[in-house]
Amino acid sequence: MKLQNIKIVMVGSTHPGNIGAAARVMNNMCFSHLTLVDPQCPIGETAYARASGANAILDNRENCSELTQAIADCSLVVAASARHRSLPWPELSPTELADKLTSMDDSSRVALVFGREHSGLLNEEIQLCNQMVCIPANPEFSSLNLASAIQVLCYEIYSHQNDAPPPGKQPEAHDLPAPSSEVEGYFEHLQRVLLSSGYLDPDQPGLIMQRLRRLYLRSELTRNEINILRGMLTAIEKHQP
Amino acid sequence: MKLQNIKIVMVGSTHPGNIGAAARVMNNMCFSHLTLVDPQCPIGETAYARASGANAILDNRENCSELTQAIADCSLVVAASARHRSLPWPELSPTELADKLTSMDDSSRVALVFGREHSGLLNEEIQLCNQMVCIPANPEFSSLNLASAIQVLCYEIYSHQNDAPPPGKQPEAHDLPAPSSEVEGYFEHLQRVLLSSGYLDPDQPGLIMQRLRRLYLRSELTRNEINILRGMLTAIEKHQP
Repeated sequence: MKLQNIKIVMVGSTHPGNIGAAARVMNNMCFSHLTLVDPQCPIGETAYARASGANAILDNRENCSELTQAIADCSLVVAASARHRSLPWPELSPTELADKLTSMDDSSRVALVFGREHSGLLNEEIQLCNQMVCIPANPEFSSLNLASAIQVLCYEIYSHQNDAPPPGKQPEAHDLPAPSSEVEGYFEHLQRVLLSSGYLDPDQPGLIMQRLRRLYLRSELTRNEINILRGMLTAIEKHQP
Repeated sequence: MKLQNIKIVMVGSTHPGNIGAAARVMNNMCFSHLTLVDPQCPIGETAYARASGANAILDNRENCSELTQAIADCSLVVAASARHRSLPWPELSPTELADKLTSMDDSSRVALVFGREHSGLLNEEIQLCNQMVCIPANPEFSSLNLASAIQVLCYEIYSHQNDAPPPGKQPEAHDLPAPSSEVEGYFEHLQRVLLSSGYLDPDQPGLIMQRLRRLYLRSELTRNEINILRGMLTAIEKHQP
Protein backbone atom coordinates (compact mmCIF):
# COMPACT_ATOMS: atom_id res chain seq x y z
CA MET A 1 0.00 0.00 0.00
CA LYS A 2 1.00 3.64 -0.29
CA LEU A 3 2.59 5.33 2.73
CA GLN A 4 0.70 8.53 1.90
CA ASN A 5 -2.49 6.61 2.63
CA ILE A 6 -1.45 5.85 6.19
CA LYS A 7 -2.48 8.58 8.63
CA ILE A 8 -0.61 9.13 11.84
CA VAL A 9 -3.31 10.15 14.31
CA MET A 10 -2.23 11.78 17.59
CA VAL A 11 -5.00 11.98 20.18
CA GLY A 12 -4.94 14.65 22.91
CA SER A 13 -1.21 15.34 22.70
CA THR A 14 0.01 17.76 25.37
CA HIS A 15 3.59 18.54 24.25
CA PRO A 16 4.19 20.57 21.08
CA GLY A 17 7.75 19.16 20.98
CA ASN A 18 6.33 15.67 20.53
CA ILE A 19 4.09 16.81 17.69
CA GLY A 20 7.03 18.48 15.95
CA ALA A 21 9.25 15.45 16.55
CA ALA A 22 6.49 13.23 15.10
CA ALA A 23 6.43 15.36 11.94
CA ARG A 24 10.20 14.94 11.56
CA VAL A 25 9.96 11.17 12.05
CA MET A 26 7.15 10.97 9.49
CA ASN A 27 9.13 12.92 6.92
CA ASN A 28 12.21 10.75 7.58
CA MET A 29 10.13 7.64 6.92
CA CYS A 30 8.16 9.04 3.92
CA PHE A 31 4.84 9.46 5.70
CA SER A 32 2.95 12.69 5.09
CA HIS A 33 -0.51 12.63 6.59
CA LEU A 34 -0.66 13.87 10.20
CA THR A 35 -3.99 14.15 12.00
CA LEU A 36 -4.33 15.81 15.40
CA VAL A 37 -7.40 14.95 17.47
CA ASP A 38 -8.17 17.50 20.18
CA PRO A 39 -4.55 18.64 20.79
CA GLN A 40 -3.92 20.16 24.22
CA CYS A 41 -1.15 22.55 23.18
CA PRO A 42 -0.42 25.24 20.59
CA ILE A 43 1.37 24.16 17.39
CA GLY A 44 3.89 26.97 17.21
CA GLU A 45 7.58 27.67 17.53
CA THR A 46 8.43 24.65 19.71
CA ALA A 47 6.72 22.23 17.37
CA TYR A 48 8.33 23.72 14.26
CA ALA A 49 11.78 23.74 15.88
CA ARG A 50 11.57 20.02 16.67
CA ALA A 51 10.20 19.30 13.18
CA SER A 52 13.65 20.34 11.86
CA GLY A 53 12.36 21.29 8.45
CA ALA A 54 9.39 18.93 8.15
CA ASN A 55 7.21 22.04 8.14
CA ALA A 56 4.94 20.90 5.34
CA ILE A 57 3.65 18.04 7.47
CA LEU A 58 2.71 20.45 10.26
CA ASP A 59 1.29 23.02 7.83
CA ASN A 60 -0.89 20.41 6.11
CA ARG A 61 -2.04 18.59 9.21
CA GLU A 62 -5.66 17.63 9.60
CA ASN A 63 -7.41 18.82 12.77
CA CYS A 64 -10.33 16.91 14.27
CA SER A 65 -12.19 17.23 17.51
CA GLU A 66 -13.14 13.55 17.67
CA LEU A 67 -11.31 10.32 16.85
CA THR A 68 -14.37 9.01 14.97
CA GLN A 69 -14.04 11.90 12.54
CA ALA A 70 -10.30 11.28 12.02
CA ILE A 71 -10.72 7.63 11.15
CA ALA A 72 -13.99 7.82 9.21
CA ASP A 73 -12.41 7.07 5.81
CA CYS A 74 -10.03 4.36 7.05
CA SER A 75 -10.58 0.66 6.44
CA LEU A 76 -7.98 -0.37 8.98
CA VAL A 77 -7.51 1.45 12.28
CA VAL A 78 -4.70 0.33 14.57
CA ALA A 79 -4.19 1.62 18.12
CA ALA A 80 -0.61 1.88 19.41
CA SER A 81 -0.87 0.90 23.01
CA ALA A 82 0.85 -0.81 25.90
CA ARG A 83 0.26 -4.51 26.49
CA HIS A 84 -1.62 -6.01 29.49
CA ARG A 85 -4.66 -3.84 29.40
CA SER A 86 -7.90 -4.72 30.98
CA LEU A 87 -9.19 -4.69 27.42
CA PRO A 88 -8.21 -7.88 25.55
CA TRP A 89 -8.06 -6.44 22.01
CA PRO A 90 -6.45 -8.30 19.11
CA GLU A 91 -2.79 -7.47 19.13
CA LEU A 92 -0.07 -7.27 16.49
CA SER A 93 3.68 -6.86 16.84
CA PRO A 94 5.20 -3.99 14.81
CA THR A 95 6.56 -6.53 12.32
CA GLU A 96 3.17 -8.19 11.93
CA LEU A 97 1.61 -4.77 11.37
CA ALA A 98 4.18 -3.96 8.69
CA ASP A 99 3.56 -7.33 6.99
CA LYS A 100 -0.14 -6.70 7.03
CA LEU A 101 0.13 -3.20 5.56
CA THR A 102 2.56 -4.33 2.88
CA SER A 103 0.02 -6.81 1.60
CA MET A 104 -2.84 -4.29 1.47
CA ASP A 105 -4.24 -2.69 -1.63
CA ASP A 106 -2.83 0.64 -2.84
CA SER A 107 -6.13 2.40 -2.40
CA SER A 108 -6.67 1.33 1.22
CA ARG A 109 -6.67 4.00 3.89
CA VAL A 110 -5.22 3.20 7.27
CA ALA A 111 -4.94 5.07 10.59
CA LEU A 112 -2.29 4.45 13.23
CA VAL A 113 -3.63 5.97 16.42
CA PHE A 114 -1.40 7.20 19.25
CA GLY A 115 -2.71 8.24 22.68
CA ARG A 116 -1.88 10.91 25.24
CA GLU A 117 1.62 11.25 26.73
CA HIS A 118 0.57 10.27 30.22
CA SER A 119 -2.62 8.30 29.88
CA GLY A 120 -2.60 6.74 26.41
CA LEU A 121 -5.89 5.93 24.73
CA LEU A 122 -9.19 5.50 26.54
CA ASN A 123 -10.83 2.11 26.37
CA GLU A 124 -13.64 3.53 24.27
CA GLU A 125 -11.08 4.91 21.80
CA ILE A 126 -9.35 1.52 21.51
CA GLN A 127 -12.73 -0.01 20.86
CA LEU A 128 -13.00 2.11 17.70
CA CYS A 129 -9.88 0.37 16.38
CA ASN A 130 -9.58 -2.93 14.52
CA GLN A 131 -6.45 -4.00 16.32
CA MET A 132 -3.76 -2.90 18.71
CA VAL A 133 -0.06 -2.83 17.98
CA CYS A 134 2.31 -3.23 20.89
CA ILE A 135 5.99 -2.28 20.79
CA PRO A 136 8.12 -4.79 22.73
CA ALA A 137 9.82 -3.04 25.66
CA ASN A 138 11.37 -3.46 29.09
CA PRO A 139 8.51 -4.68 31.32
CA GLU A 140 9.90 -2.51 34.16
CA PHE A 141 10.05 0.66 32.05
CA SER A 142 7.73 0.22 29.12
CA SER A 143 6.44 3.70 28.38
CA LEU A 144 8.04 5.02 25.21
CA ASN A 145 8.15 8.69 24.35
CA LEU A 146 5.32 9.45 21.90
CA ALA A 147 7.59 10.41 18.99
CA SER A 148 9.76 7.34 19.72
CA ALA A 149 6.74 5.07 19.42
CA ILE A 150 5.82 6.74 16.12
CA GLN A 151 9.44 6.32 15.02
CA VAL A 152 9.43 2.57 15.67
CA LEU A 153 6.20 1.91 13.78
CA CYS A 154 7.00 4.21 10.86
CA TYR A 155 10.47 2.66 10.61
CA GLU A 156 9.07 -0.89 10.56
CA ILE A 157 6.54 -0.03 7.90
CA TYR A 158 8.93 2.01 5.77
CA SER A 159 11.68 -0.58 5.88
CA HIS A 160 9.24 -3.39 5.03
CA GLN A 161 8.04 -1.46 1.99
CA ASN A 162 11.65 -1.05 0.95
CA ASP A 163 12.85 -4.56 1.45
CA ALA A 164 13.53 -4.65 -2.23
CA PRO A 165 15.93 -1.69 -2.07
CA PRO A 166 16.37 0.54 -5.10
CA PRO A 167 19.47 -0.43 -7.04
CA GLY A 168 22.37 1.37 -5.36
CA LYS A 169 25.49 2.54 -7.08
CA GLN A 170 27.18 -0.50 -8.59
CA PRO A 171 30.68 -1.05 -7.27
CA GLU A 172 33.57 -0.57 -9.67
CA ALA A 173 35.09 -3.76 -11.06
CA HIS A 174 38.15 -3.50 -8.82
CA ASP A 175 35.86 -3.23 -5.78
CA LEU A 176 34.21 -6.56 -6.55
CA PRO A 177 35.40 -9.70 -4.80
CA ALA A 178 38.43 -11.07 -6.60
CA PRO A 179 38.21 -14.44 -8.39
CA SER A 180 39.62 -17.39 -6.52
CA SER A 181 42.64 -17.65 -8.82
CA GLU A 182 43.79 -14.19 -7.72
CA VAL A 183 43.20 -14.96 -4.06
CA GLU A 184 45.20 -18.18 -4.41
CA GLY A 185 47.97 -16.22 -6.11
CA TYR A 186 48.08 -13.99 -3.04
CA PHE A 187 48.28 -16.99 -0.67
CA GLU A 188 51.20 -18.43 -2.63
CA HIS A 189 53.00 -15.10 -2.56
CA LEU A 190 52.32 -14.69 1.17
CA GLN A 191 53.62 -18.17 1.95
CA ARG A 192 56.81 -17.48 -0.04
CA VAL A 193 57.50 -14.28 1.90
CA LEU A 194 56.74 -15.89 5.24
CA LEU A 195 59.06 -18.78 4.48
CA SER A 196 61.92 -16.54 3.39
CA SER A 197 61.52 -14.31 6.45
CA GLY A 198 61.75 -17.35 8.70
CA TYR A 199 58.25 -16.98 10.14
CA LEU A 200 56.93 -20.24 8.71
CA ASP A 201 58.51 -23.57 9.51
CA PRO A 202 59.30 -25.00 6.02
CA ASP A 203 58.37 -28.46 7.27
CA GLN A 204 55.04 -27.41 8.70
CA PRO A 205 53.63 -24.30 7.08
CA GLY A 206 50.15 -25.78 7.15
CA LEU A 207 48.44 -24.70 10.34
CA ILE A 208 49.42 -21.03 10.18
CA MET A 209 48.57 -20.81 6.48
CA GLN A 210 45.23 -22.42 7.18
CA ARG A 211 44.41 -19.73 9.74
CA LEU A 212 45.51 -16.97 7.39
CA ARG A 213 43.36 -18.45 4.62
CA ARG A 214 40.40 -18.47 6.94
CA LEU A 215 40.94 -14.81 7.83
CA TYR A 216 41.34 -13.55 4.26
CA LEU A 217 38.68 -15.76 2.71
CA ARG A 218 36.20 -14.53 5.29
CA SER A 219 36.93 -10.96 4.15
CA GLU A 220 36.07 -11.65 0.52
CA LEU A 221 39.02 -9.65 -0.75
CA THR A 222 38.44 -7.28 -3.66
CA ARG A 223 40.82 -7.03 -6.61
CA ASN A 224 41.98 -3.68 -5.31
CA GLU A 225 42.82 -5.20 -1.94
CA ILE A 226 44.68 -8.09 -3.56
CA ASN A 227 46.75 -5.53 -5.46
CA ILE A 228 47.60 -3.68 -2.25
CA LEU A 229 48.45 -6.86 -0.35
CA ARG A 230 50.66 -8.16 -3.17
CA GLY A 231 52.31 -4.75 -3.49
CA MET A 232 53.20 -4.96 0.20
CA LEU A 233 54.70 -8.42 -0.25
CA THR A 234 56.74 -7.32 -3.24
CA ALA A 235 58.13 -4.32 -1.33
CA ILE A 236 59.04 -6.56 1.62
CA GLU A 237 60.75 -9.09 -0.68
CA LYS A 238 62.82 -6.39 -2.37
CA HIS A 239 63.85 -5.02 0.99
CA GLN A 240 65.04 -8.43 2.26
CA PRO A 241 68.79 -9.11 2.29
CA MET B 1 24.87 -11.60 23.60
CA LYS B 2 23.94 -9.53 26.63
CA LEU B 3 22.37 -6.11 26.10
CA GLN B 4 24.33 -4.79 29.09
CA ASN B 5 27.50 -5.46 27.10
CA ILE B 6 26.43 -3.14 24.30
CA LYS B 7 27.56 0.44 24.90
CA ILE B 8 25.70 3.32 23.36
CA VAL B 9 28.45 5.83 22.58
CA MET B 10 27.40 9.42 21.81
CA VAL B 11 30.21 11.52 20.32
CA GLY B 12 30.20 15.30 20.73
CA SER B 13 26.46 15.63 21.43
CA THR B 14 25.32 19.24 21.68
CA HIS B 15 21.75 18.92 23.02
CA PRO B 16 21.15 17.73 26.59
CA GLY B 17 17.59 16.81 25.59
CA ASN B 18 18.92 14.28 23.12
CA ILE B 19 21.17 12.73 25.75
CA GLY B 20 18.24 12.45 28.19
CA ALA B 21 15.97 11.08 25.46
CA ALA B 22 18.67 8.52 24.59
CA ALA B 23 18.75 7.37 28.24
CA ARG B 24 14.97 6.87 28.17
CA VAL B 25 15.14 4.91 24.92
CA MET B 26 17.91 2.75 26.34
CA ASN B 27 15.96 1.98 29.50
CA ASN B 28 12.84 1.19 27.43
CA MET B 29 14.86 -1.30 25.38
CA CYS B 30 16.84 -2.81 28.32
CA PHE B 31 20.19 -1.20 27.49
CA SER B 32 22.15 0.31 30.37
CA HIS B 33 25.64 1.39 29.34
CA LEU B 34 25.82 4.99 28.07
CA THR B 35 29.18 6.50 27.13
CA LEU B 36 29.58 10.18 26.29
CA VAL B 37 32.63 11.21 24.32
CA ASP B 38 33.46 14.90 24.61
CA PRO B 39 29.86 16.12 25.15
CA GLN B 40 29.29 19.78 24.21
CA CYS B 41 26.56 20.49 26.75
CA PRO B 42 25.87 20.14 30.48
CA ILE B 43 24.03 17.02 31.65
CA GLY B 44 21.56 18.68 33.99
CA GLU B 45 17.89 19.44 34.39
CA THR B 46 16.99 19.27 30.68
CA ALA B 47 18.65 15.90 30.22
CA TYR B 48 17.04 14.42 33.35
CA ALA B 49 13.61 15.76 32.39
CA ARG B 50 13.75 14.06 28.99
CA ALA B 51 15.08 10.85 30.57
CA SER B 52 11.64 10.54 32.24
CA GLY B 53 12.92 8.43 35.11
CA ALA B 54 15.84 6.68 33.40
CA ASN B 55 18.09 8.58 35.82
CA ALA B 56 20.34 5.64 36.66
CA ILE B 57 21.56 5.51 33.07
CA LEU B 58 22.57 9.17 33.21
CA ASP B 59 24.04 8.82 36.72
CA ASN B 60 26.16 5.83 35.72
CA ARG B 61 27.28 7.12 32.35
CA GLU B 62 30.90 6.75 31.32
CA ASN B 63 32.70 9.94 30.24
CA CYS B 64 35.59 9.87 27.79
CA SER B 65 37.52 12.56 26.02
CA GLU B 66 38.39 10.39 23.02
CA LEU B 67 36.50 7.77 21.00
CA THR B 68 39.51 5.42 21.10
CA GLN B 69 39.24 5.33 24.89
CA ALA B 70 35.48 4.60 24.75
CA ILE B 71 35.85 1.63 22.42
CA ALA B 72 39.17 0.20 23.67
CA ASP B 73 37.56 -2.89 25.24
CA CYS B 74 35.06 -3.53 22.42
CA SER B 75 35.55 -6.29 19.87
CA LEU B 76 32.85 -4.95 17.56
CA VAL B 77 32.47 -1.24 16.94
CA VAL B 78 29.62 -0.10 14.69
CA ALA B 79 29.15 3.49 13.49
CA ALA B 80 25.61 4.71 12.93
CA SER B 81 25.89 6.90 9.90
CA ALA B 82 24.21 8.11 6.75
CA ARG B 83 24.77 6.29 3.48
CA HIS B 84 26.61 7.68 0.41
CA ARG B 85 29.72 8.91 2.12
CA SER B 86 32.97 9.49 0.39
CA LEU B 87 34.22 6.70 2.63
CA PRO B 88 33.04 3.30 1.37
CA TRP B 89 32.95 1.44 4.70
CA PRO B 90 31.20 -1.94 5.02
CA GLU B 91 27.55 -1.35 5.76
CA LEU B 92 24.82 -3.25 7.61
CA SER B 93 21.09 -2.65 7.79
CA PRO B 94 19.63 -2.43 11.31
CA THR B 95 18.19 -5.94 10.89
CA GLU B 96 21.52 -7.34 9.79
CA LEU B 97 23.16 -5.66 12.79
CA ALA B 98 20.60 -7.20 15.14
CA ASP B 99 21.13 -10.65 13.57
CA LYS B 100 24.85 -10.31 13.98
CA LEU B 101 24.65 -9.24 17.63
CA THR B 102 22.19 -12.00 18.46
CA SER B 103 24.68 -14.61 17.31
CA MET B 104 27.59 -13.16 19.30
CA ASP B 105 29.10 -14.59 22.45
CA ASP B 106 27.73 -13.47 25.84
CA SER B 107 31.06 -12.05 26.91
CA SER B 108 31.56 -9.91 23.78
CA ARG B 109 31.64 -6.16 24.21
CA VAL B 110 30.16 -4.00 21.49
CA ALA B 111 29.96 -0.25 20.88
CA LEU B 112 27.28 1.46 18.80
CA VAL B 113 28.69 4.87 17.97
CA PHE B 114 26.48 7.89 17.20
CA GLY B 115 27.86 11.18 15.90
CA ARG B 116 27.12 14.85 16.38
CA GLU B 117 23.63 16.25 15.77
CA HIS B 118 24.65 18.37 12.81
CA SER B 119 27.80 16.84 11.45
CA GLY B 120 27.73 13.15 12.42
CA LEU B 121 31.00 11.28 12.76
CA LEU B 122 34.30 12.36 11.26
CA ASN B 123 35.87 10.07 8.67
CA GLU B 124 38.71 9.28 11.07
CA GLU B 125 36.14 8.26 13.70
CA ILE B 126 34.37 5.95 11.24
CA GLN B 127 37.73 4.42 10.41
CA LEU B 128 38.01 3.23 14.01
CA CYS B 129 34.84 1.17 13.49
CA ASN B 130 34.43 -2.31 12.04
CA GLN B 131 31.27 -1.48 10.16
CA MET B 132 28.62 1.12 9.59
CA VAL B 133 24.91 0.68 10.16
CA CYS B 134 22.58 2.76 8.07
CA ILE B 135 18.90 3.31 8.94
CA PRO B 136 16.76 3.29 5.80
CA ALA B 137 15.11 6.69 5.36
CA ASN B 138 13.61 9.13 2.91
CA PRO B 139 16.45 10.05 0.56
CA GLU B 140 15.13 13.63 0.48
CA PHE B 141 15.05 13.99 4.26
CA SER B 142 17.29 11.37 5.72
CA SER B 143 18.66 12.97 8.88
CA LEU B 144 17.03 11.33 11.91
CA ASN B 145 16.99 12.94 15.32
CA LEU B 146 19.81 11.46 17.39
CA ALA B 147 17.54 9.81 19.97
CA SER B 148 15.31 8.51 17.16
CA ALA B 149 18.28 6.80 15.54
CA ILE B 150 19.21 5.25 18.89
CA GLN B 151 15.57 4.19 19.29
CA VAL B 152 15.50 2.37 15.96
CA LEU B 153 18.71 0.42 16.58
CA CYS B 154 17.92 -0.41 20.21
CA TYR B 155 14.44 -1.52 19.21
CA GLU B 156 15.76 -3.78 16.44
CA ILE B 157 18.32 -5.35 18.74
CA TYR B 158 15.95 -5.75 21.69
CA SER B 159 13.17 -7.27 19.64
CA HIS B 160 15.61 -9.66 17.90
CA GLN B 161 16.94 -10.88 21.24
CA ASN B 162 13.44 -11.80 22.21
CA ASP B 163 12.97 -13.83 19.05
CA ALA B 164 16.37 -15.45 19.27
CA PRO B 165 17.03 -19.18 19.46
CA PRO B 166 19.33 -20.30 22.31
CA PRO B 167 23.01 -19.74 21.54
CA GLY B 168 25.08 -22.57 20.05
CA LYS B 169 28.47 -23.76 21.22
CA GLN B 170 30.57 -20.87 22.52
CA PRO B 171 33.94 -20.28 20.82
CA GLU B 172 37.21 -20.39 22.78
CA ALA B 173 38.48 -17.07 24.17
CA HIS B 174 41.29 -16.69 21.62
CA ASP B 175 38.80 -17.25 18.82
CA LEU B 176 36.71 -14.28 19.88
CA PRO B 177 37.11 -10.95 18.10
CA ALA B 178 39.99 -8.96 19.57
CA PRO B 179 39.31 -5.69 21.38
CA SER B 180 39.83 -2.47 19.46
CA SER B 181 43.01 -1.58 21.36
CA GLU B 182 44.72 -4.77 20.10
CA VAL B 183 43.56 -4.20 16.55
CA GLU B 184 44.92 -0.64 16.68
CA GLY B 185 48.23 -2.04 17.97
CA TYR B 186 48.36 -4.25 14.88
CA PHE B 187 47.72 -1.30 12.54
CA GLU B 188 50.57 0.67 14.14
CA HIS B 189 52.90 -2.29 13.75
CA LEU B 190 51.82 -2.86 10.14
CA GLN B 191 52.35 0.80 9.23
CA ARG B 192 55.84 0.72 10.80
CA VAL B 193 56.85 -2.32 8.75
CA LEU B 194 55.38 -0.94 5.53
CA LEU B 195 57.23 2.35 6.04
CA SER B 196 60.57 0.65 6.72
CA SER B 197 60.18 -1.63 3.72
CA GLY B 198 59.56 1.39 1.50
CA TYR B 199 56.04 0.31 0.50
CA LEU B 200 54.34 3.29 2.10
CA ASP B 201 55.20 6.83 1.13
CA PRO B 202 56.14 8.44 4.49
CA ASP B 203 54.47 11.66 3.36
CA GLN B 204 51.21 9.98 2.36
CA PRO B 205 50.58 6.71 4.18
CA GLY B 206 46.90 7.57 4.51
CA LEU B 207 45.02 6.12 1.57
CA ILE B 208 46.70 2.72 1.59
CA MET B 209 46.38 2.44 5.38
CA GLN B 210 42.70 3.36 5.09
CA ARG B 211 42.10 0.52 2.65
CA LEU B 212 43.99 -1.92 4.85
CA ARG B 213 42.00 -0.79 7.89
CA ARG B 214 38.80 -1.38 5.99
CA LEU B 215 39.86 -4.88 4.98
CA TYR B 216 40.98 -5.97 8.45
CA LEU B 217 38.20 -4.24 10.40
CA ARG B 218 35.66 -5.92 8.16
CA SER B 219 37.17 -9.30 9.09
CA GLU B 220 36.75 -8.73 12.85
CA LEU B 221 40.14 -10.21 13.67
CA THR B 222 40.32 -12.67 16.55
CA ARG B 223 43.06 -12.48 19.19
CA ASN B 224 44.63 -15.56 17.64
CA GLU B 225 44.74 -13.90 14.24
CA ILE B 226 46.23 -10.71 15.70
CA ASN B 227 48.96 -12.87 17.26
CA ILE B 228 49.70 -14.53 13.93
CA LEU B 229 49.71 -11.24 12.01
CA ARG B 230 51.99 -9.55 14.55
CA GLY B 231 54.26 -12.59 14.60
CA MET B 232 54.59 -12.27 10.82
CA LEU B 233 55.48 -8.58 11.13
CA THR B 234 58.06 -9.26 13.84
CA ALA B 235 59.70 -11.98 11.70
CA ILE B 236 59.79 -9.64 8.69
CA GLU B 237 61.30 -6.82 10.79
CA LYS B 238 64.02 -9.10 12.16
CA HIS B 239 64.86 -10.29 8.67
CA GLN B 240 65.21 -6.77 7.29
CA PRO B 241 68.73 -5.44 6.75
